[in-house]
Amino acid sequence: MMSDGPVPDVNRRQRTGIPEVVYADGKDPDVVADLLAAIHSADDRAALATRCSQEAFDEARRRFGAAAVIDPVARTITLGVTAPLGGRVVIVTAGTTDLPVAYECRNAAAAFGLSADVIGDVGIAGLQRLLDRIDVIRGYDIVIVIAGMDGALPAVVAGLVRAPVIAVPSSVGYGIASGGHAALNTMLASCSPGLAVVNIDNGLGAAALAARIVTAFRPAGEDTGRR
Amino acid sequence: MMSDGPVPDVNRRQRTGIPEVVYADGKDPDVVADLLAAIHSADDRAALATRCSQEAFDEARRRFGAAAVIDPVARTITLGVTAPLGGRVVIVTAGTTDLPVAYECRNAAAAFGLSADVIGDVGIAGLQRLLDRIDVIRGYDIVIVIAGMDGALPAVVAGLVRAPVIAVPSSVGYGIASGGHAALNTMLASCSPGLAVVNIDNGLGAAALAARIVTAFRPAGEDTGRR
Amino acid sequence: MMSDGPVPDVNRRQRTGIPEVVYADGKDPDVVADLLAAIHSADDRAALATRCSQEAFDEARRRFGAAAVIDPVARTITLGVTAPLGGRVVIVTAGTTDLPVAYECRNAAAAFGLSADVIGDVGIAGLQRLLDRIDVIRGYDIVIVIAGMDGALPAVVAGLVRAPVIAVPSSVGYGIASGGHAALNTMLASCSPGLAVVNIDNGLGAAALAARIVTAFRPAGEDTGRR
Amino acid sequence: MMSDGPVPDVNRRQRTGIPEVVYADGKDPDVVADLLAAIHSADDRAALATRCSQEAFDEARRRFGAAAVIDPVARTITLGVTAPLGGRVVIVTAGTTDLPVAYECRNAAAAFGLSADVIGDVGIAGLQRLLDRIDVIRGYDIVIVIAGMDGALPAVVAGLVRAPVIAVPSSVGYGIASGGHAALNTMLASCSPGLAVVNIDNGLGAAALAARIVTAFRPAGEDTGRR
Amino acid sequence: MMSDGPVPDVNRRQRTGIPEVVYADGKDPDVVADLLAAIHSADDRAALATRCSQEAFDEARRRFGAAAVIDPVARTITLGVTAPLGGRVVIVTAGTTDLPVAYECRNAAAAFGLSADVIGDVGIAGLQRLLDRIDVIRGYDIVIVIAGMDGALPAVVAGLVRAPVIAVPSSVGYGIASGGHAALNTMLASCSPGLAVVNIDNGLGAAALAARIVTAFRPAGEDTGRR
Amino acid sequence: MMSDGPVPDVNRRQRTGIPEVVYADGKDPDVVADLLAAIHSADDRAALATRCSQEAFDEARRRFGAAAVIDPVARTITLGVTAPLGGRVVIVTAGTTDLPVAYECRNAAAAFGLSADVIGDVGIAGLQRLLDRIDVIRGYDIVIVIAGMDGALPAVVAGLVRAPVIAVPSSVGYGIASGGHAALNTMLASCSPGLAVVNIDNGLGAAALAARIVTAFRPAGEDTGRR
Amino acid sequence: MMSDGPVPDVNRRQRTGIPEVVYADGKDPDVVADLLAAIHSADDRAALATRCSQEAFDEARRRFGAAAVIDPVARTITLGVTAPLGGRVVIVTAGTTDLPVAYECRNAAAAFGLSADVIGDVGIAGLQRLLDRIDVIRGYDIVIVIAGMDGALPAVVAGLVRAPVIAVPSSVGYGIASGGHAALNTMLASCSPGLAVVNIDNGLGAAALAARIVTAFRPAGEDTGRR
Amino acid sequence: MMSDGPVPDVNRRQRTGIPEVVYADGKDPDVVADLLAAIHSADDRAALATRCSQEAFDEARRRFGAAAVIDPVARTITLGVTAPLGGRVVIVTAGTTDLPVAYECRNAAAAFGLSADVIGDVGIAGLQRLLDRIDVIRGYDIVIVIAGMDGALPAVVAGLVRAPVIAVPSSVGYGIASGGHAALNTMLASCSPGLAVVNIDNGLGAAALAARIVTAFRPAGEDTGRR
Repeated sequence: MMSDGPVPDVNRRQRTGIPEVVYADGKDPDVVADLLAAIHSADDRAALATRCSQEAFDEARRRFGAAAVIDPVARTITLGVTAPLGGRVVIVTAGTTDLPVAYECRNAAAAFGLSADVIGDVGIAGLQRLLDRIDVIRGYDIVIVIAGMDGALPAVVAGLVRAPVIAVPSSVGYGIASGGHAALNTMLASCSPGLAVVNIDNGLGAAALAARIVTAFRPAGEDTGRR
Repeated sequence: MMSDGPVPDVNRRQRTGIPEVVYADGKDPDVVADLLAAIHSADDRAALATRCSQEAFDEARRRFGAAAVIDPVARTITLGVTAPLGGRVVIVTAGTTDLPVAYECRNAAAAFGLSADVIGDVGIAGLQRLLDRIDVIRGYDIVIVIAGMDGALPAVVAGLVRAPVIAVPSSVGYGIASGGHAALNTMLASCSPGLAVVNIDNGLGAAALAARIVTAFRPAGEDTGRR
Repeated sequence: MMSDGPVPDVNRRQRTGIPEVVYADGKDPDVVADLLAAIHSADDRAALATRCSQEAFDEARRRFGAAAVIDPVARTITLGVTAPLGGRVVIVTAGTTDLPVAYECRNAAAAFGLSADVIGDVGIAGLQRLLDRIDVIRGYDIVIVIAGMDGALPAVVAGLVRAPVIAVPSSVGYGIASGGHAALNTMLASCSPGLAVVNIDNGLGAAALAARIVTAFRPAGEDTGRR
Repeated sequence: MMSDGPVPDVNRRQRTGIPEVVYADGKDPDVVADLLAAIHSADDRAALATRCSQEAFDEARRRFGAAAVIDPVARTITLGVTAPLGGRVVIVTAGTTDLPVAYECRNAAAAFGLSADVIGDVGIAGLQRLLDRIDVIRGYDIVIVIAGMDGALPAVVAGLVRAPVIAVPSSVGYGIASGGHAALNTMLASCSPGLAVVNIDNGLGAAALAARIVTAFRPAGEDTGRR
Repeated sequence: MMSDGPVPDVNRRQRTGIPEVVYADGKDPDVVADLLAAIHSADDRAALATRCSQEAFDEARRRFGAAAVIDPVARTITLGVTAPLGGRVVIVTAGTTDLPVAYECRNAAAAFGLSADVIGDVGIAGLQRLLDRIDVIRGYDIVIVIAGMDGALPAVVAGLVRAPVIAVPSSVGYGIASGGHAALNTMLASCSPGLAVVNIDNGLGAAALAARIVTAFRPAGEDTGRR
Repeated sequence: MMSDGPVPDVNRRQRTGIPEVVYADGKDPDVVADLLAAIHSADDRAALATRCSQEAFDEARRRFGAAAVIDPVARTITLGVTAPLGGRVVIVTAGTTDLPVAYECRNAAAAFGLSADVIGDVGIAGLQRLLDRIDVIRGYDIVIVIAGMDGALPAVVAGLVRAPVIAVPSSVGYGIASGGHAALNTMLASCSPGLAVVNIDNGLGAAALAARIVTAFRPAGEDTGRR
Repeated sequence: MMSDGPVPDVNRRQRTGIPEVVYADGKDPDVVADLLAAIHSADDRAALATRCSQEAFDEARRRFGAAAVIDPVARTITLGVTAPLGGRVVIVTAGTTDLPVAYECRNAAAAFGLSADVIGDVGIAGLQRLLDRIDVIRGYDIVIVIAGMDGALPAVVAGLVRAPVIAVPSSVGYGIASGGHAALNTMLASCSPGLAVVNIDNGLGAAALAARIVTAFRPAGEDTGRR
Repeated sequence: MMSDGPVPDVNRRQRTGIPEVVYADGKDPDVVADLLAAIHSADDRAALATRCSQEAFDEARRRFGAAAVIDPVARTITLGVTAPLGGRVVIVTAGTTDLPVAYECRNAAAAFGLSADVIGDVGIAGLQRLLDRIDVIRGYDIVIVIAGMDGALPAVVAGLVRAPVIAVPSSVGYGIASGGHAALNTMLASCSPGLAVVNIDNGLGAAALAARIVTAFRPAGEDTGRR
């Protein structure tokens, strides 16, 4: 009578504005596919799985064919499409090795109804690369900044723009930077007030926070259910 | 010819929407007062100092009289008033010992033009205290949640509301919870996507993030300077 | 004359109520099988090995045939059956990726004479999943709660039930949650008094604690030897 | 309209069997006294405050007179008396410097309806001190063991008795043992299965766990409300 | 016959170019004064003591009168003067609360024969404060950068100048930044190659490294003893 | 009937060769004095208390007069005298700030029957100070080396002598060296094989280990009881 | 002209009583073999390599044939034989998974001229296993105790014997015990005075310390060179 | 319009004296080759990639043929040659297992225009190996010292030479030394003032710091652009 199988949180989007996302790491490929199908059919929006293995990709391809979008760099599967919410989001990375986290973030943003642009490789070792692009970055409503090693880029950006800045530490680095803890602590300790920090490599979390912000503040529509 | 005195960042509000805040810890009381006067006169808005000592309070009272608002629990001094930006913010705490952080947050929010209500003592050990208030909390645009010890409250709140949730770990606790690191890690590791985390006891940072969000999304006005 | 081979603790069940359990990690498959046979024959109860490799499974199948019950998800081998002690135990998990720990716990409970039900996937990100089942959970004598990532579920459960709650952190998660230390610290720091915490991924330890509780309090029987 | 004062969790005892306990650290003495009075009057049982300052003691004495029992070593205030639940509990300490934690535990146990004996100074450096008392210890239903420094005593005890053993690390020690983390980790890593571990110096938590166990298993009475 | 008193390392300057410096923390004031006198008389250069207490200042004033220069912010005592070696050094700080470390560094540099200028309060939260001064900074041979909290300033500076950059983390900050460890790790993890890092608050160490560099590379003189 | 007072381990010397030592931190002065008297009278040897407060010194002076030897630097009280065991021990320190640990070690050694010489201030920053004394050091049977900060001295010594080297990290230092953990790890990680490491600031432990070595290997006497 | 090849420390045995040991991890198999041959030929004693790979074993077999003794569990190669020094050493382990460390220790002891017996699997979860053997253990001059997980066994043994006890933490365990740090800290924090602690899994270090003790105290012989 | 590809920092050498170095870990082999070609062609100097995989070596060989110098031990690719700057640099290692870090350092130094000699295997366990070479080492302008395990060598060297000493912790070691953190902390905590420390295994960083020093102090030339 007891159940130990997955219990999809089918009304999470109604409660929080963000549908349940399948955390595929440690789940069987067919469980991942079942959950994607269940979430997608309940909502007629994009269903997303993150941290997928090649086996999960294969099963999704076999089961959903072209309806599933697979991104092997981001390690995501997206089933279906979400209508745009509005809101201009940019994802800025310190280096090209941060791109897998950036792509997870971009794909999650898309699944939540946000369109996000990516600007890569503007780390602070060559500050002019950032300064050359800062006016473009200032044109966005939300800025997500991903950095490993010293993790100093988000604080610099936050001192230059008015938008909320979401800082994502990445696990890029070695020695004291290994695992991303140095970058995480840099971001939390930032003397630029107003940085939002999420867990290491958590591109998904940054996208979810952006979606919450846009949902909370865009002109009220019929499907937000907030008021 | 070299200068080692304070260099107020007088155009920070123009760049980031948030004026410089005086971090009073480790500064002489008259330096704190000088900086408050300089920031306030540059901008005709509230100038704020945090982590003030009794000596700083005395100097502010002597120098500014009733124009300075002193909050000894929050350890803040506010000089002047900022016109409201709009945006409804609520600050929720797990226990009453988290209130000093909540009041720093509330006072900083006010200095940035936000009005914030405080709801104290709704920690998860008595979940119905939160559930009884959840509909009130759902009425706000931004929810700031402060918790020490296990730090679990923000994740529970984030699973129940649509608004962006800003999580502030507090240094309340002993043993493994001492210093607030356990609460911080709980918040970063949360399985409720979309939590924004700031440094331990950083009520100011949470208010600054809220101000950035409101500034970015409210109807454009003449003083935002964003576009 | 000295001996460096295994020395089975054959009267551990007489002393502590719990037989020795074979920790198979790092042991040769035939040593695991020898120990299982020795413990089982000394006691005519179930003998258990945890953290078994495929090689250990193969050797157990070869040696014991159908008398050995192999659970590859839990990584356990059980040889023989233990008569039920009584005591109603439920194992609750935050997510389906916690199930390997839950099954180790359930199998260990069975070897100790307890029957345990498993309720999976009721993490706090979707609180109503827990609230929907809380009356069922209240019907048990002992509640074991397994959670990774933020590890917040046991504290929430402990605030809602009267039974002793045994909290097991799992190593599910990434970044700051990697290895289960964040979940462990959350559980130790819980503001819900009365949580019993065990080591990360230690399903066995939770079952052993449950068995000690049931043994200590059930109506005295002939084989407890306590009074 | 918002409230940031304390919100006593008045039906916690109905839900969990354990009344709310006032954590006095960081609270004003009169708030502590108010909460004690509120909890006591709601329930006609003992109300308890832990981690009290001398100022809180003075206020309690002034307000409640002899009705409040003050224990300056344990740093507790108890207002009123709880009828005994039954259940035999013993608190064993490794050294006499662990006694403040033991007395917090004993006083909390009394407030929860348990009578607990204390056996001090039986650390493993002189193992015969424990072995001389082990038959006495075996006569109890629940054994709480408090140890600092190496924290090894609970594992030794757990290998010698059938009762559930609750391990409380204390912050006694210096160098690597400072703060109690070494003792905590020893207890979590114990190879004696079935240890319940609580936070460092958390005598209260051990008593609450003992109370949950006794409540869950004693013959059903009119005030448990469990079935 | 054995000696447990201080053994001044009188030929350290001959071996390493840097005289022994008295670490006053934990030493009696008269021992500090004795050592200063011994080092000064051996060498006819400035002798330096760091981390001095008020008692050490009083004793130095009593013993040496105006010959001792006392800096209570830097907590240093300097006895005598060292002839200049040449080499242009600048000390840059992120905030004014870093100045005690900067002054220890400047005083140590002076004792080693270097003249160092201090530029305070150019942290990255207001990047233009740094950019406004970067051409001045580029005019120095060695740049020492002191920062607490996020510790990001040295990496930004190192990306903009050709000189060797010596990074000194300061213990300014709270929460995750407390004690200076976050700043230290940021500096070690920097993606700007060529940062030299020293211990937290170690202004002395940065000055000693600068003195070694200048000694190694300036035109050979009679007292360097290197070749 | 239960006892929670101190239980002196009166036959510890018979079992282990080392009498119980009173750890005075956290104990009342009269308890310290009672224990010293009990241990001394049981054995007619020196009884030792470590980590004593001024109050404990005052009580010892009042109770024992000149029979008690008080060392305020080492924070020890010694009551009575132990006949010499033989064995030549030297205690070497890196700096003079390590001397309190050295004196605790010397006094403990004396209480255990060992005579120990102290050589102070031979840290590796001035290696010739060590090399000048190395032949003297080679004349001892056991070498105890105390160092804080980098903790490198014991490894250097161990590469130069044949005797067993006992390494004691001290809590001297700041920043990364604060608390003595860096020194401890250096000693444990040493590439000089054969270092015995004890806890930070544990002069007593080093003396006890030396006493065990001498006891184990000196010509058998009537009171060792080993064979 | 510069050399970056290995520089065997050929007179280490003369200086310290212990020959250089080849740390094979990260070295090419032929370098390992070259070093073994060089050390063996310089001294006509056993040369030892630890942490060897299968490739190193193969090369040693090819090069030295039966003259090399290979122990794949201990991961050691021994070339040649050392004449016995005397001294009775016993190696005690908590569990059978600690045996690889025990065998490294035994093989190193043999290479240093000590004969060591091994007693396995006497962990404290079944204390009578230790108590049954304690009189045998008391017959040795030096006791080496190896334990993972909680690491509590050495403290228990040290409270029962007079000999010096050398504690070796092993990396056996999971969760909080992973990597052996919990066991290490337990041993350092032990309240049984006189434990010598070495690095995690450092069987070699324990043997080297034992050899230093025996060398220092055995009757003076012609090859010790100490007096 | 947005770009997320690599953005080579082509004028980094003009700004900082050091060209951009390709961090190959986590980059595709063809991206590594593209970046090397771009950097080399912009500058007509050596372009360097570090932490290269075998796949990156293969691609470099295929693309550049003999123009690329591949060092599989150092894991570097060098394309082209840099004219010498002058400056005499020596790289000293504690053991031969530190050589991969030493070779990365040497190759990076060469790419920056420095010629560096390597002296291997002079760790402090055999101090005379260092003392035999110390006069040679004193002949260099800059001394880079690489050490794992206890990391004590740089402090010893810094006490013996006048040149700036750059300390590189290596990840050689096990147990407490695993990952190089113990060595790093030893170096930061050194009581030899004037050590420059870089990240663990960061041979590149040490070379970059050396190049900055030489660039800053050598006789002004036409391509430094500093004055």
